[in-house]
Amino acid sequence: MKTLIKDVYVLTMNNKKDVYKNGYVLLEDDQILAVGSMQDLTKEAAYDKIIEGGHAIAMPGMINSHTHIGMIPFRSLGDDSPDRLRRFLFPLEKACMTKELAYHSAKYAIAEMQLAGVTTFMDMYYFENELAVATDEMGSRALLGETVIDFETCDTTEVYGGLKVAEEFIPKWLNHKLITPAIAPHAPNTNSPEALLEACRLSEKYNVPITMHLSEMDYEMQYFNEHYKTTPVEFLESIGFLKENSRLIAAHCIHLTDLDIELLEKFDVAVAHCIGANTKSAKGVARIHDMLAHNIRVGLGTDGPSSGNTLDLFTQMKLFANFHKTTLKDRGAFPAAEIVDLATMGGARALKLDDTVGSLEPGKKADLVLVETDSVNMFPLFDPYAVLVYSANASNVRDVFINGEAVVRNKRLIRYSLAALRETLYSHMGDFSKTAKIYAAE
Amino acid sequence: MKTLIKDVYVLTMNNKKDVYKNGYVLLEDDQILAVGSMQDLTKEAAYDKIIEGGHAIAMPGMINSHTHIGMIPFRSLGDDSPDRLRRFLFPLEKACMTKELAYHSAKYAIAEMQLAGVTTFMDMYYFENELAVATDEMGSRALLGETVIDFETCDTTEVYGGLKVAEEFIPKWLNHKLITPAIAPHAPNTNSPEALLEACRLSEKYNVPITMHLSEMDYEMQYFNEHYKTTPVEFLESIGFLKENSRLIAAHCIHLTDLDIELLEKFDVAVAHCIGANTKSAKGVARIHDMLAHNIRVGLGTDGPSSGNTLDLFTQMKLFANFHKTTLKDRGAFPAAEIVDLATMGGARALKLDDTVGSLEPGKKADLVLVETDSVNMFPLFDPYAVLVYSANASNVRDVFINGEAVVRNKRLIRYSLAALRETLYSHMGDFSKTAKIYAAE
Repeated sequence: MKTLIKDVYVLTMNNKKDVYKNGYVLLEDDQILAVGSMQDLTKEAAYDKIIEGGHAIAMPGMINSHTHIGMIPFRSLGDDSPDRLRRFLFPLEKACMTKELAYHSAKYAIAEMQLAGVTTFMDMYYFENELAVATDEMGSRALLGETVIDFETCDTTEVYGGLKVAEEFIPKWLNHKLITPAIAPHAPNTNSPEALLEACRLSEKYNVPITMHLSEMDYEMQYFNEHYKTTPVEFLESIGFLKENSRLIAAHCIHLTDLDIELLEKFDVAVAHCIGANTKSAKGVARIHDMLAHNIRVGLGTDGPSSGNTLDLFTQMKLFANFHKTTLKDRGAFPAAEIVDLATMGGARALKLDDTVGSLEPGKKADLVLVETDSVNMFPLFDPYAVLVYSANASNVRDVFINGEAVVRNKRLIRYSLAALRETLYSHMGDFSKTAKIYAAE
Repeated sequence: MKTLIKDVYVLTMNNKKDVYKNGYVLLEDDQILAVGSMQDLTKEAAYDKIIEGGHAIAMPGMINSHTHIGMIPFRSLGDDSPDRLRRFLFPLEKACMTKELAYHSAKYAIAEMQLAGVTTFMDMYYFENELAVATDEMGSRALLGETVIDFETCDTTEVYGGLKVAEEFIPKWLNHKLITPAIAPHAPNTNSPEALLEACRLSEKYNVPITMHLSEMDYEMQYFNEHYKTTPVEFLESIGFLKENSRLIAAHCIHLTDLDIELLEKFDVAVAHCIGANTKSAKGVARIHDMLAHNIRVGLGTDGPSSGNTLDLFTQMKLFANFHKTTLKDRGAFPAAEIVDLATMGGARALKLDDTVGSLEPGKKADLVLVETDSVNMFPLFDPYAVLVYSANASNVRDVFINGEAVVRNKRLIRYSLAALRETLYSHMGDFSKTAKIYAAE
């Protein structure tokens, strides 16, 4: 089946950053068949379906390289509370997070990402088998990492029980067309060296990605300094956790030394940069400019809905621009096109999916987004990259295709009703909300 | 005429920050008659019109304390260019900015603000008489300041010609119900002391506000240091520009010393804080926490569409939260409710309109906004302030009332068609766009 998307402003995000101001994208089944200028379009070719682009911007589907899709129920709870993690997150997860709640949260979170033009995401949470079912039902592309941590959690009664959960979860999903199972040790300071190495072993055994929070917390930095006289990154290297040709995606990496950056480069560790969550929580601005200078693969992440609040990358792109320009004291740093690259190809490289998605090129999977240019904030359009980074928001996303299938058309989900997803999630939030309000009042 | 808005989550933003989770707002003509809980609503009262709130958040109209509504044509042009002001703005204004283009830009900019829930703004631009006509036609509340600067501009062939323009413009609009004319010396370094004092005299003669850019630019700071061994604020005080009971609204104020802050406090100068524009241009983060500690009146501003890009305050509130928390290294700093206060009452205080607007209280003018909570980003709603600051964007604004009149209903303009406003503006942009593209290619 051939689908022609015509009259769009195509940002290919290929190596040459080719742009077709009045262009088209031709899909065949799950792939991109051709991209080009309307004037070069073969007139006689037969298309099964034609989509009028209406001068929308056509761009690759965006890639959210770090999130927690089970955490929608936590959104707008304790945002400004300094002890939020221990006052709300950990106790509420322990008391009220169920398999069903995580599953319905995941469906809602994926709906939010699809509506915002995010076609691929990497998750770290519990009940990843159920979240994989949710992802499959929604039709998104994802890497899903089962959490390993040094206490009993909502999905296991054992310390480091996530390792066992992952051993069951990973083989089940190894050959899914859109889902890649993964393992997710929570952080270096919330796992024993043995648990970390066991997670590593699982990643190698099944050749699946591994993701963790790294160099995020002040107390994490202190812990390794006090106990080992190292940084967390140095510690990971010292125990043999970092390997050549790593499949490690490290989230945050806010507090890196020069040596840390060299180590990440040496072991080809990718970084999921969550500027919104990092700055809302006053943790600081990661050294992305230096990381990129060391060829470290960097993607953008929203973090969970309790930390980054919304799961769209428009918010992250805007925050990225303003924070990095200000930190570098250079308004010319990170021009808009580079930031759009991080949200698309950057994420694809970070997740080692750059042969599959991240740009609009023949042979790649058909993950793409049309961003309308009719809304009041989208005019005029001298520079489409600048419009995406500085002016657009998630509500401007019109159509979204994942693996060739339309999951959003005219700003509405295709597979599900958003209202129904919300109602179902809400109906599972009774205990959670009651307990949350008790904590908030304390 | 009595209009009842029912079933809304009311954030009054009054001194006590009263909130009615299941509340109503009752309008009579151009005023707010009552605000309260649905359960206290007098059943027998007769209303001419009932608006179903549908659990939207009802909040005061937001106040944009600094913008340039004539500059929509510049949006997405040279955003990342370090010499943007001299490469694009000044030459393009001189070559291509006409009375007609400024007028149509203004209508479009006001449409954008209305759709985003901004009901009052303070402008600084040229052709302010035409911009006042545009504002009157659109039905927004505004303070409009005619620019005075040390070169020929698009609306005068004389150096400091804005003074003469203002002498004609101000008396014409003195008694308008929504519009307050004002005078706007561009900056301390782009005016002679004589021109500054003449602007001051005009402000006093007509008892109208005065606004200017202040302590914004590196080269501005250098100039006063080299020539006078002062800061710009000290310089203004030394020439007698600062007066007790000032009507001065100073935009930016990024580079203030402790003494500067004391001077602003002493002379009751208000500050229009444009965090988005200031950080996108890598200029820095103004010391808002210190200013507020000195009782300086602070409002939020978008700056012009060429600097802040969008004219909504949701973007500014989010950037405000993340930048100030990070700068202060305190995630608890500026909880969301304080930021919503800056966008509403803060702006009203800065513009000395706090007896008129800024909160939902009986007797105040009926400037209010309903923000829907049905969109995917707006759930769940544990804390409505957090939802507004961390999750909402301009597209969530459903209904907007200014002075009792609905200017936006169900996300659409009432008085005008947005498409028609854009078409008209676009039809006046021919020369501008052609010239802009030549500059961009150079």
